[in-house]
Amino acid sequence: MEVIRSLQNARVKSWCKLHDKKYRDKEHRFLIENEHLIMEAKDSGLLEALILLENESDHLNFEGPLFYVSEEVMKKLKMSQSLPKWMGVCRISKTDRPLGNKIILCDDVQDPGNLGTMIRSAYAFGFDSFIVSQASADLYNDKTVRSTQGALFHMNVCRGDIMDVVASLRSDGYKIYATALKNAKGLSEFKNEEKMVLIFGNEGRGVREELLAMADACIYIEMNRFESLNVAMAATICCYWFRS
Amino acid sequence: MEVIRSLQNARVKSWCKLHDKKYRDKEHRFLIENEHLIMEAKDSGLLEALILLENESDHLNFEGPLFYVSEEVMKKLKMSQSLPKWMGVCRISKTDRPLGNKIILCDDVQDPGNLGTMIRSAYAFGFDSFIVSQASADLYNDKTVRSTQGALFHMNVCRGDIMDVVASLRSDGYKIYATALKNAKGLSEFKNEEKMVLIFGNEGRGVREELLAMADACIYIEMNRFESLNVAMAATICCYWFRS
Repeated sequence: MEVIRSLQNARVKSWCKLHDKKYRDKEHRFLIENEHLIMEAKDSGLLEALILLENESDHLNFEGPLFYVSEEVMKKLKMSQSLPKWMGVCRISKTDRPLGNKIILCDDVQDPGNLGTMIRSAYAFGFDSFIVSQASADLYNDKTVRSTQGALFHMNVCRGDIMDVVASLRSDGYKIYATALKNAKGLSEFKNEEKMVLIFGNEGRGVREELLAMADACIYIEMNRFESLNVAMAATICCYWFRS
Repeated sequence: MEVIRSLQNARVKSWCKLHDKKYRDKEHRFLIENEHLIMEAKDSGLLEALILLENESDHLNFEGPLFYVSEEVMKKLKMSQSLPKWMGVCRISKTDRPLGNKIILCDDVQDPGNLGTMIRSAYAFGFDSFIVSQASADLYNDKTVRSTQGALFHMNVCRGDIMDVVASLRSDGYKIYATALKNAKGLSEFKNEEKMVLIFGNEGRGVREELLAMADACIYIEMNRFESLNVAMAATICCYWFRS
């Protein structure tokens, strides 16, 4: 068994570059690092290679390429505090359009933790696609990926021009609903639709006006005390309400 | 205007101690540090003193004691990355029992971010009290406080022996509902009750068996794909469902 020990090794250098969004986008690859995520990636067929600490005998039943590395190399590769036993190199699946009947759209959601939680909820409650605007947080940021708890590997996720996407879905007969605080109806007045799009907005400004103007209706979440909820919480409630 | 510049100043030393849970518990005080939180604390009457960066002319209309400090002192006191203009010293309001008709109970919720989000949701949807078990995360941890977005200052929150609390509420005629994955009914089958308790469990093991045994019914959140949600998201959905 060969162990990679040099930080100058070409593979190590190319993996390290995946810490950077620019390279993830270019290489269509990203790193993950906990056992649960690795198993989910493996099951979805998106795990390309497994990186293991030398002396780690369990290769998680992965049948693709295995790379053993020294502790020093693993420290260089890792993204969290503790030293992982395994890291995975995953492929970004190249979809570029919404699929299915129930779609979530994020208009410039900035926080990776929010984005990941929204993907987790969308998946849990039976949504099919998750589309983010160009200025939203990165889908393959370590924090986003961890917050999805693996849901990322099982959903159609993509980034696109959000105005074009909405216009296209609208002409395909989808109901378009956007969350908003003004000119909106309470969530509990809505019924489930077969083909629908739910739009959530930026943490600061909400959904942009041009998108609100394209919506069939706006939704607010009935509360008696606070004016707004965190976007991930709002999305979770809406996904539950419109669950399949 | 006197400016405190010494890290050895007695006040500075006593404020710094409040970074530690042990001292927060002993002194019944905690620190906060963003403008929004400080305004909420002020409105609730729990702000005891305002600490300002020297040269800061805006004292946020606070009429209590003002303490101006040097940048070096503020750096020592702050809890987040950036240098705040203001910090607040808050009193912990000493309630030790549930009040009102709608109560959330946390059985060893470990993550401060989860705890804070749950307090925010409980408050937003009209719950009256928020009780945590002895082994739950600290209610006055900086991350908890920030995640509540100020809701902490407007709710009856306390820590107690959770078994005693449930037994007492049960004999007072409250309906007791616990979240669980087994032997549970879907959330949408439940109707709102005038006097109710919702119990949420530890991130790893859920609600302990002894508490499940005391519940009138167990609730699961209907999903078609995942086995469990993050506890903060589960609580947010339930609080919405049972909102006042």
